[in-house]
Amino acid sequence: MTRQHLKVAVIGGGSSYTPELIDGILRYHDEFPVRELVLADIEAGAEKLAIVAELARRMIARSGKEIALRTTLDRREAIAGADFVTTQLRVGMLEARSLDEKIPLSHGLIGQETTGAGGFAKALRTVPVILDICRDMEELAPDAFLVNFTNPAGLVTEAVLKHSRIKTVGLCNLPIDTKMQIAALYGVEPERVFIEMAGINHLHWTTRVLLDGEDVTASFLKTLASGKGLTVKNVPDLEWDAAFIASLGALPCSYHRYYYMKNEMLAELASDFERTGRTRADEVKSVEAELFDIYRRPEVTEKPKQLEKRGGAYYSEAAVRLMKSIYADKGDIQVVNVRNGGIVSCLPDDASIEVNCVIKADGAHPLQLAAPLSPQIRGLLQLVKSYEELTIEAAVHGDRRAALQALTVHPLVGDAALAKTVLADILEANAAYLPQFATLVP
Amino acid sequence: MTRQHLKVAVIGGGSSYTPELIDGILRYHDEFPVRELVLADIEAGAEKLAIVAELARRMIARSGKEIALRTTLDRREAIAGADFVTTQLRVGMLEARSLDEKIPLSHGLIGQETTGAGGFAKALRTVPVILDICRDMEELAPDAFLVNFTNPAGLVTEAVLKHSRIKTVGLCNLPIDTKMQIAALYGVEPERVFIEMAGINHLHWTTRVLLDGEDVTASFLKTLASGKGLTVKNVPDLEWDAAFIASLGALPCSYHRYYYMKNEMLAELASDFERTGRTRADEVKSVEAELFDIYRRPEVTEKPKQLEKRGGAYYSEAAVRLMKSIYADKGDIQVVNVRNGGIVSCLPDDASIEVNCVIKADGAHPLQLAAPLSPQIRGLLQLVKSYEELTIEAAVHGDRRAALQALTVHPLVGDAALAKTVLADILEANAAYLPQFATLVP
Amino acid sequence: MTRQHLKVAVIGGGSSYTPELIDGILRYHDEFPVRELVLADIEAGAEKLAIVAELARRMIARSGKEIALRTTLDRREAIAGADFVTTQLRVGMLEARSLDEKIPLSHGLIGQETTGAGGFAKALRTVPVILDICRDMEELAPDAFLVNFTNPAGLVTEAVLKHSRIKTVGLCNLPIDTKMQIAALYGVEPERVFIEMAGINHLHWTTRVLLDGEDVTASFLKTLASGKGLTVKNVPDLEWDAAFIASLGALPCSYHRYYYMKNEMLAELASDFERTGRTRADEVKSVEAELFDIYRRPEVTEKPKQLEKRGGAYYSEAAVRLMKSIYADKGDIQVVNVRNGGIVSCLPDDASIEVNCVIKADGAHPLQLAAPLSPQIRGLLQLVKSYEELTIEAAVHGDRRAALQALTVHPLVGDAALAKTVLADILEANAAYLPQFATLVP
Amino acid sequence: MTRQHLKVAVIGGGSSYTPELIDGILRYHDEFPVRELVLADIEAGAEKLAIVAELARRMIARSGKEIALRTTLDRREAIAGADFVTTQLRVGMLEARSLDEKIPLSHGLIGQETTGAGGFAKALRTVPVILDICRDMEELAPDAFLVNFTNPAGLVTEAVLKHSRIKTVGLCNLPIDTKMQIAALYGVEPERVFIEMAGINHLHWTTRVLLDGEDVTASFLKTLASGKGLTVKNVPDLEWDAAFIASLGALPCSYHRYYYMKNEMLAELASDFERTGRTRADEVKSVEAELFDIYRRPEVTEKPKQLEKRGGAYYSEAAVRLMKSIYADKGDIQVVNVRNGGIVSCLPDDASIEVNCVIKADGAHPLQLAAPLSPQIRGLLQLVKSYEELTIEAAVHGDRRAALQALTVHPLVGDAALAKTVLADILEANAAYLPQFATLVP
Repeated sequence: MTRQHLKVAVIGGGSSYTPELIDGILRYHDEFPVRELVLADIEAGAEKLAIVAELARRMIARSGKEIALRTTLDRREAIAGADFVTTQLRVGMLEARSLDEKIPLSHGLIGQETTGAGGFAKALRTVPVILDICRDMEELAPDAFLVNFTNPAGLVTEAVLKHSRIKTVGLCNLPIDTKMQIAALYGVEPERVFIEMAGINHLHWTTRVLLDGEDVTASFLKTLASGKGLTVKNVPDLEWDAAFIASLGALPCSYHRYYYMKNEMLAELASDFERTGRTRADEVKSVEAELFDIYRRPEVTEKPKQLEKRGGAYYSEAAVRLMKSIYADKGDIQVVNVRNGGIVSCLPDDASIEVNCVIKADGAHPLQLAAPLSPQIRGLLQLVKSYEELTIEAAVHGDRRAALQALTVHPLVGDAALAKTVLADILEANAAYLPQFATLVP
Repeated sequence: MTRQHLKVAVIGGGSSYTPELIDGILRYHDEFPVRELVLADIEAGAEKLAIVAELARRMIARSGKEIALRTTLDRREAIAGADFVTTQLRVGMLEARSLDEKIPLSHGLIGQETTGAGGFAKALRTVPVILDICRDMEELAPDAFLVNFTNPAGLVTEAVLKHSRIKTVGLCNLPIDTKMQIAALYGVEPERVFIEMAGINHLHWTTRVLLDGEDVTASFLKTLASGKGLTVKNVPDLEWDAAFIASLGALPCSYHRYYYMKNEMLAELASDFERTGRTRADEVKSVEAELFDIYRRPEVTEKPKQLEKRGGAYYSEAAVRLMKSIYADKGDIQVVNVRNGGIVSCLPDDASIEVNCVIKADGAHPLQLAAPLSPQIRGLLQLVKSYEELTIEAAVHGDRRAALQALTVHPLVGDAALAKTVLADILEANAAYLPQFATLVP
Repeated sequence: MTRQHLKVAVIGGGSSYTPELIDGILRYHDEFPVRELVLADIEAGAEKLAIVAELARRMIARSGKEIALRTTLDRREAIAGADFVTTQLRVGMLEARSLDEKIPLSHGLIGQETTGAGGFAKALRTVPVILDICRDMEELAPDAFLVNFTNPAGLVTEAVLKHSRIKTVGLCNLPIDTKMQIAALYGVEPERVFIEMAGINHLHWTTRVLLDGEDVTASFLKTLASGKGLTVKNVPDLEWDAAFIASLGALPCSYHRYYYMKNEMLAELASDFERTGRTRADEVKSVEAELFDIYRRPEVTEKPKQLEKRGGAYYSEAAVRLMKSIYADKGDIQVVNVRNGGIVSCLPDDASIEVNCVIKADGAHPLQLAAPLSPQIRGLLQLVKSYEELTIEAAVHGDRRAALQALTVHPLVGDAALAKTVLADILEANAAYLPQFATLVP
Repeated sequence: MTRQHLKVAVIGGGSSYTPELIDGILRYHDEFPVRELVLADIEAGAEKLAIVAELARRMIARSGKEIALRTTLDRREAIAGADFVTTQLRVGMLEARSLDEKIPLSHGLIGQETTGAGGFAKALRTVPVILDICRDMEELAPDAFLVNFTNPAGLVTEAVLKHSRIKTVGLCNLPIDTKMQIAALYGVEPERVFIEMAGINHLHWTTRVLLDGEDVTASFLKTLASGKGLTVKNVPDLEWDAAFIASLGALPCSYHRYYYMKNEMLAELASDFERTGRTRADEVKSVEAELFDIYRRPEVTEKPKQLEKRGGAYYSEAAVRLMKSIYADKGDIQVVNVRNGGIVSCLPDDASIEVNCVIKADGAHPLQLAAPLSPQIRGLLQLVKSYEELTIEAAVHGDRRAALQALTVHPLVGDAALAKTVLADILEANAAYLPQFATLVP
């Protein structure tokens, strides 16, 4: 990809994360010389978009780079002729997320943004919008890459792979975050660490750790098992049990706590909510309000420190590293979400997976796993993937049957009667964002 | 198989089910001319063995068939030269089952004989004994078939397939029971009904129903969805939700209630136990006491009606039909447990599955499924199978790591901390029957 | 299938094989009570159709069965409302077959009706006609079974499976012929023999032989290796080498001689042709002329003995047995051509295969193979199947690229330059029957 | 891999190729700082070993690098403590190769060093020697990498993967040669070209060509189809037919000429041999004699130009690039031979394949293919792989049955009677090198 005029479109450009992205673009501008950057958002986000854009302009000005930054409320204008389209949108905004957390809790279930019944609701709202963006891209930027950060990122990527011709890579900051933390544990530069991750977004296992090319997985698991570590901001800190880690033979990701520590996590979420009447979404709202207050200040010309509280460590790192490797046909290895095609042999070929990939100009090429997944990993992974398949069916076709089955089989629900009740609540509360379910039940 | 002297060995011959088996052998004696029938049991079961054997002798005498019936406390003597070895043993007897039901309940979990934490404990006790029997067979009756009814029958069959050279078929009365009930619903002879079952023992789905060769699955599901039906005695009666059945697109088996109706089942089990202080095992103890009282009566020369209460409908039907089809190289279709080998394409090749098989003299040949399994079926099936793999590892090698993972991933446990606690209780309570776990933790 | 009025349509009804079919229908009429039998043919076959129909009527009259026999030159009329449609047509008639044999010979290649360059030409002519018939069936008899005998029967079946919604089973008399010959070798009734065949039409291996349920494969191969036997009329008699059979570990089918004895077969075909100027097609023409002379005689009211010379031993047996088992939902085992779906794990799922199937009212259900195919079998099978895939592409779309590759990879051609020349000759000589290739080269 | 004292052992160190290797080691010494280099050979090669070693020492001296070079006739001494073991041995030397070329020709078959009946004979001689080396490595250098150049390199790699625990990568200069030629065709630096190769050693297809990250496969094939190009010295120059390349949709490798241009290649080899009484081995003998004359000259202190005639272009490039990337944990992409594990989904998991791999300190990680292989590629690849499996069985166990089947199915033989005769000749002529076949026929 040797573009004279490199154009990046950011859908959901008014997001509080955008300064992260700007920061990354500026840091890596020599290798990834963006010329035109368009922040697009919807009418309801116009104010935030304006604030973010002003901050972005100040950051660009300070850097001295030549980047034309524009904002628009017309998504199609942003997409037309873009080389990369990134999506960091939130259908229904934080209000909807708040409901995603509260509705499940009201049924005695874990309410979480990206997994369980909450993640399910988010998927129903998000998938159709992303597919609409793909439709626009097929028309206006058919060779562009869709770099998707929007959660649930793996499920959304699979929806795009199955229902669009657009080239896409799904991205999450969790893998790079894990790598950075492992490097920190060893007190070495990240380049000296190589990890094999296998699984799907928000449900991957680190199955191998190599330090300077030597396999240190066994000792790593032993050391790490008992101590704290390797969580992300969005997930409460809970320690892994040493015997459990030893028997698992791999490092779970932080979202695994919702599965392996289901009871403790639920208890914590429920008691927090009971005590404060607030969920993570409500906290984020406060954080965002603070952030936007900071963004507004004319003297702020850099990504503010406070942004880190928001949970997006290495977010710009992940995003810009991916785009610049595609741009430069770099051939380095990054953990991203791509079509399976036999790499994780226990999952369908057309599933999305999150694994090591070589990033070339034509996209991400996944690498063979060192060994097939163990049964302790395999079963849970397969179950959650079947949930994702069903949820995509539900989201794309407004299929209530698939929706009911999706919730029933999800390990964080796991009961048909409960699934039915929660589903009714979700469909009702989100009706404004779920036109695909508006028709009568068949 | 054209034996002059057809010999059947029954391991666990003192079981209250044995009169069922005798009844079947007598009814089908023309096609399956057993000459020698040896009932073997352990010392602790000597009294029951004697009672059952006396009843069996009276039944044989009444029938006028020429069958030499012997009893022995030496398993090897029974096995030597046998053509068929059937196993209907219960390691730890009903006392152990009672604990299998109570220990999980004490942790807020479903306590059930063949699935969940209870079935897990039973598997740990049972698999090594069955493999010992296989060792004896390899030495004393290498060409005999092991017809295994001992639960968890699918898991036990997989253990035998993986760790023995003995030919085996795993058997359960649930499939034939389901077929009989479907035929009864239509008011037709069972021969006019053909059903496709897919899955594993106690977790199979009826994916197709054909009446006189015509596919009536859709109408069958519609009719059945709302009504009661298709349960076995061992499982509490709960109705399936119509919308749920429609969205599943298949008929679940009765044990599916522990999964799909987890909350309701747990509530029912817990409240029953709280109310009565008894579990199903305690009821069975009473039923068995009654049965043996009846068996003792010299005037009883037939299978008593009361045996039906015990939950083994069509048990003799299934058992003897299988053996006589092997014996006669019959080529009819029966649903049994065999090596997967690609038939259920989403499960490992070396897994055991429960599907339609053609029964020939060389064993059971599974048939292709009409279609790959839907995602709503696939994920749960894969998860439970991974639990079974781990449990076999744990049972065969006394592997505590595999044991912890097995319980953690099982949908009826699903939490690592809980799994750890329950496992500790199970290992302690069953220590006498789990020599494989006697060594120190690695 | 419980039809009041069972109707069978025979496309290519004027074939000399038809009296075989009539004979079978009459013999099995109690179990397969055909009420209406329509023989359809094309204008050019009208005279033969009339002769055959008259004989058929005499045969029916003699039997006393009530079967309404009709002839028609309108294929759609025959198909409308039929329960079974059988195809025994020959596009281009024996003239075309004669060229299929001669063109390859003129290039130093084996010229044979169903395999190699000859079979390829026949496939190009036949597939589009069969798919037209399927189109008619989809409209006029959507629930009917297509029972296809037309060669290359496996390739044609795969084309139908891939390009039509019609239920179909492909059929060949070779499997039953093999079974009959094996039974004859043992001097037992065929029912006592069970064989496992694996592969594809005209390229299957008998991998297991069971006598009274006992596996006698090893001794069978030893006995048979050196002797003559197990050929069909259409294939010259050549003995298998003992060491070769032992190393193969299976019984090849008679068409394997064109592969394993390629040089000898080619030499024989070439010298025969040089000596006589005639090929098998020319012989068949003479045989057919004789047969039709016999068919014409009013005193002939049975299938004439001379028909056996034609090479169709057990043809009616195979055809009627299949249809009556479907009709009666019989559940017996027959070797037929069906969709693979994982049974032969080294071939694509959507390939057609020829294996043991249970025949039920809803079609043929293939059985699991006892073991994966050995490498000596696997590679050749995969290569020929890839030839079949390419040939179907060529035949359906008039794709010259696929055609060139099909011939190039076929083991009986195996050279690109030669393939190109032969292909040019075939396309030219068959132009009248290959409208799909009429457009300009892309 | 951060070795203080990097040691490389070269088995077959007396090869005329060794100066190539030395040249590469010197050129890349900064990144791959070899400290100890041991050239090992057998007694019969002692003289050549001495000559090569003297030249190597002069080359090292001229370079000023600090490398201790030793020679030994004791292979185990060379292996002990090595970090890399490379094999460039030739069991039976050029005399044996000469027979590998002449024996097949005497039966009207292509006689070639690495494929067909000739390559088969070479495999029988070579595999046991390589496995002996692996046994030594398991004892004396268990963590070392075996970098195997010995032909047939793919088959040998598969034998090592199946029968040894040693880490191995199989290597051939053909892939890098192809890439260099493609770069030359475009007049660009090789780094700007990315090609996807899929298949096995000496039978791979270039399925994608990217220039600066853009897919130019279609235009590349069009341009190239008609012209000469992309051959190696060991393979006669024959042009590809344009229509053939277009229909193949991929660039074949030069060894494909033996398959796709079988007749022309055979004619050329036969006529050359008839005319000259010499084969390629005889030419190589002359070339080698000349080379060694040059090597002997004290004034020669660099790799002589004449070595290029030998056919090993980029040989040192390939060899040293691989080792240095492993040493430096580099993560670049190279085409090497590794375990399949699902990457080429139509081949067995335990087969060796030749594809793009990321080279890390723990070995070569193959990348997912962009698409499954087309049928025109798949069938031939599968057949030749089944030949390789059988040949490994024959070579490891002295299994005459597998040997006969291997030759029978190989597309360059393809006839059982011929295979039997050729096999007898090969076994007799090579008896001194085939102790595994010395026992009586079973």
